[in-house]
Amino acid sequence: MSLKDQSVPTDPIEAAPLPVEEVLHNADENLNASLDRLLRFLSIPSVSCDPHYAPQCQEAASWLVNELAGVGFDASVRQTCGHPVVVAHKREATGPHVLFYGHYDVQPVEPLEEWIADPFDPKLRLQPDGETHIVARGASDDKGQLLTFVEACRAWKAVTGRLPISVSMFFEGEEESGSQSIDGFLDEAGQELRADVMLLCDTYLWNDAIPAVTVSFRGLLEQEIEITCANRDLHSGAYGNAARNPIQVLAELISSLRGKNGEVAIEGFYDDVKDPDEDLGGELGKLNFNADIFLKKVGLSQSAGDEAYSVLEQVWTRPSCEINGIAGGYCGDGLKTIIPSKAVAKISFRLVAGQDPEKIEAKFCEHIRARLPADCRVKFTGSGGSKASIICSKSEYLRRARAALKDEWNCESVLIGSGGSIPIVSVMQSRFGLDSLPIGFARSDNRHHSPNEKYDLSSFHKGIRSWIRVLAQLSNCDSSRFGS
Amino acid sequence: MSLKDQSVPTDPIEAAPLPVEEVLHNADENLNASLDRLLRFLSIPSVSCDPHYAPQCQEAASWLVNELAGVGFDASVRQTCGHPVVVAHKREATGPHVLFYGHYDVQPVEPLEEWIADPFDPKLRLQPDGETHIVARGASDDKGQLLTFVEACRAWKAVTGRLPISVSMFFEGEEESGSQSIDGFLDEAGQELRADVMLLCDTYLWNDAIPAVTVSFRGLLEQEIEITCANRDLHSGAYGNAARNPIQVLAELISSLRGKNGEVAIEGFYDDVKDPDEDLGGELGKLNFNADIFLKKVGLSQSAGDEAYSVLEQVWTRPSCEINGIAGGYCGDGLKTIIPSKAVAKISFRLVAGQDPEKIEAKFCEHIRARLPADCRVKFTGSGGSKASIICSKSEYLRRARAALKDEWNCESVLIGSGGSIPIVSVMQSRFGLDSLPIGFARSDNRHHSPNEKYDLSSFHKGIRSWIRVLAQLSNCDSSRFGS
Repeated sequence: MSLKDQSVPTDPIEAAPLPVEEVLHNADENLNASLDRLLRFLSIPSVSCDPHYAPQCQEAASWLVNELAGVGFDASVRQTCGHPVVVAHKREATGPHVLFYGHYDVQPVEPLEEWIADPFDPKLRLQPDGETHIVARGASDDKGQLLTFVEACRAWKAVTGRLPISVSMFFEGEEESGSQSIDGFLDEAGQELRADVMLLCDTYLWNDAIPAVTVSFRGLLEQEIEITCANRDLHSGAYGNAARNPIQVLAELISSLRGKNGEVAIEGFYDDVKDPDEDLGGELGKLNFNADIFLKKVGLSQSAGDEAYSVLEQVWTRPSCEINGIAGGYCGDGLKTIIPSKAVAKISFRLVAGQDPEKIEAKFCEHIRARLPADCRVKFTGSGGSKASIICSKSEYLRRARAALKDEWNCESVLIGSGGSIPIVSVMQSRFGLDSLPIGFARSDNRHHSPNEKYDLSSFHKGIRSWIRVLAQLSNCDSSRFGS
Repeated sequence: MSLKDQSVPTDPIEAAPLPVEEVLHNADENLNASLDRLLRFLSIPSVSCDPHYAPQCQEAASWLVNELAGVGFDASVRQTCGHPVVVAHKREATGPHVLFYGHYDVQPVEPLEEWIADPFDPKLRLQPDGETHIVARGASDDKGQLLTFVEACRAWKAVTGRLPISVSMFFEGEEESGSQSIDGFLDEAGQELRADVMLLCDTYLWNDAIPAVTVSFRGLLEQEIEITCANRDLHSGAYGNAARNPIQVLAELISSLRGKNGEVAIEGFYDDVKDPDEDLGGELGKLNFNADIFLKKVGLSQSAGDEAYSVLEQVWTRPSCEINGIAGGYCGDGLKTIIPSKAVAKISFRLVAGQDPEKIEAKFCEHIRARLPADCRVKFTGSGGSKASIICSKSEYLRRARAALKDEWNCESVLIGSGGSIPIVSVMQSRFGLDSLPIGFARSDNRHHSPNEKYDLSSFHKGIRSWIRVLAQLSNCDSSRFGS
């Protein structure tokens, strides 16, 4: 990696009098050891949504605590009503106090048959362009990204014996399954996590060459609906036509959720939607986003969304309703000529600024109930949901972090939105007024939540280097509120 | 069982000079041995639609051959391109020649957790009303029913050393999975199955006290459609709104298959539908059918079908379109926030007189293709299908069989329709001009294709006795065409 961009500092912000170059060199020299730690971390199948993997979630948390203790953190596993969290602190005499957030849990791996190898036996795969892919569930989301920050701290500690600023860490194990234990944990121990700003790394680069800070996230509302008609599966010959078919009913209900232009057709769904934050709105046009390429990469040629909005608006600043799963009757080999008793669908809404999950849930349930034919019962299973989050794009922390990114990447970073949800961002803002600074190094082709998830070795390496520089730059910020 | 109804023959048809009473007595005396054979037969998990059970299908066929050989039949297992068939012959010097058809294969058992016991470990369960239920997959459909005929032959052989008429038997192993090997087998060996009339026992009593001959069957057309959008599962945050969701597409397509009144909304679907056979049409009104009770028994209160037709017409003489299964995305524990790449549905059509499966398949495919949005590919998987069958209700065989049923049940039998399909009926009629005589002893609550399928011990017992009488009565018929 060329370091020439460091030799002539041209940024108006003065570099801190810290041995940044030595720390970067240390990280470069120890990259293989960092990678070995990542591969070990990835081999733990910490799938949070499936209760069978609870011991593996515990194992991942314990593994993190051991690693953090090795870097000098006061680290511990904390039990919750669900999977445990990891909390770690390393207080320093100078600079502000940052909280770094990540999650050690991962998505399920289904469909397993589409993986080229065991998703929990991580493999390095050299690519034709010279890049190396780290292939495993969680490689990018979020174990690889999370470790970039831990390894940056390790390099600072190795070279200087300390960190440039005070750092706390908070890793949860339920990000992929609704973060249901977080509220309870924060009720009890939240004060311990107060800091000046929260850093997180669960986000994307803008492209391979340009880093990004993500300043808006959509919220998430999850709903499962189960439709029951007859009290048992029926022979489709004996009852066909006369018996209400719950798959047919469910299909008609799902069909009613979207209008002809791709808009969500639930009454009042858009009532409270606010215009996107001006900063982000302004940035969207500058990003030179190519929607055709975005869609073509996944085998699509045109947007399914509301034509009144650009594709970038559709995925960042407009709310959505997607069916994530459906099941009913018999779908194995051959045909089973039944009218099933039940059918079920998993549905999730992505929410934008202004939308309240509880209100949307109520409107959704009302929409379904109003359309339910005779002889059908519906069971709703929801899980609370989270609001959208808008990050203030004018803070000193953001300005310093972007300066650090410019030093490492040799170009200006961009401000972007995210269609996904990081509920902790809105939770920490509403509970403690804590702003976030989401900087991630994932590429758009990393196959998050899909088979053959990967993280580029260069993302891992430049991610570590970027955080080394960010930590140095943040040491110039005043600790405005809770400085250590 | 009271036999007094036999003591004073009042039917205008003279009873054959055969020792019917002794044969009935033999069957009564040996009921426990007959039952033991049925329990052994039921313990073989001959699920035909799942290739994993191919050895068990072979085992069921071999078991039948051994039993038939024990009754004096020249019986053999014949291999096909799928599961084997069983063919057996016992020629006698007198009477016509009947072919008895049945199937040794069974439906899958899913959902297994709803069974009160292992579906292949048959249990006898005494009921509060004194009835005994034989609970197992296939107890009624069709192993129990099939054996009523075999055991009737056994009793005749035991008492008289012969059968009253010539009997061939033909048992297939793919009735529950589309009978795909039958055509090939009949091409090669069909001549061997020519007879004067085909008997079968895969049908129902009208009610606990009144036997029935089923004179119309709906045909069956099976279709699977798989919708593919993106080339992989996508993160619903990153792509939600913009990426076409195959579950949403499939739901909209399914929704389009039925109109507001429950009618099938495929253009031209009803074009070729003929009025139901006059005999059956006339019988429908006489049957004193209680649609409310029919629906209430399975937890429903009103018909989902076209109100212009009675419930009995909806399930017997009107064609239907039912979704038998649907699957897509993630439906395990928790939520997986994906837009899946694919979704699939299994759909079956019940066809009535006049409808051609090939034409309906073409109309269905055209209906789907015409509604497919951009970026969707559809894969159709069909399996040929069968036409509806109408049995001539005026034959001498039918008249004699009904006389026998009246002797056993002490009441007139009724002529009924069936919403289900027995493809062999239409196949044998079109290939060899062979009429059928479907007489079954299943009750409507036997849970065919569902968990906890059962056969009443009284169905089994009176079924054996009924066939003993039918064989005697048919000995009075002239062998009009192929008599032995």
